[in-house]
Amino acid sequence: MAEENDNTIFVGKKPSMSYVLAAITQFSEGKNEITIKARGRSISKAVDVSQIIKNKFIPDIKFGDIKIGTDQIESETKEKINVSTIEITLRK
Amino acid sequence: MAEENDNTIFVGKKPSMSYVLAAITQFSEGKNEITIKARGRSISKAVDVSQIIKNKFIPDIKFGDIKIGTDQIESETKEKINVSTIEITLRK
Repeated sequence: MAEENDNTIFVGKKPSMSYVLAAITQFSEGKNEITIKARGRSISKAVDVSQIIKNKFIPDIKFGDIKIGTDQIESETKEKINVSTIEITLRK
Repeated sequence: MAEENDNTIFVGKKPSMSYVLAAITQFSEGKNEITIKARGRSISKAVDVSQIIKNKFIPDIKFGDIKIGTDQIESETKEKINVSTIEITLRK
């Protein structure tokens, strides 16, 4: 699990470019595969991040599996809420 | 092209359930494959739509290819803007 987290970038509320730079850094440190994950409204940003990496920084990057799914989370009122997820794998 | 459009649902500003119902209707009319497309911030909603179809309506639906990409569009000031895209194929 530790190894998985090392190669995973969770996209959230920061600007897209923060996550782009995190990914570029990981690739430049020798990693060959990175997974970009996001939930809910951040899914659009995760796709943006993967596209910016390819279009502006590493044109020969390959998209591996793109997985979508549903996570069940608990709201502040202890209600169970379904939230969509995405995982985009990038390979150098 | 006409045939492609017949099987394509473009997700935009309407509530998710509008697109879910459009997809359910198409499947109930005998179609075996539907592609859900979206751009920009609607990408998250397109994933929601595909997950609601599977989780609430047609549990045995299969996800085919999930493609992401970039479209170049022209802003009101004639500036070229990159916008991310997603295509999610659902098969019955």
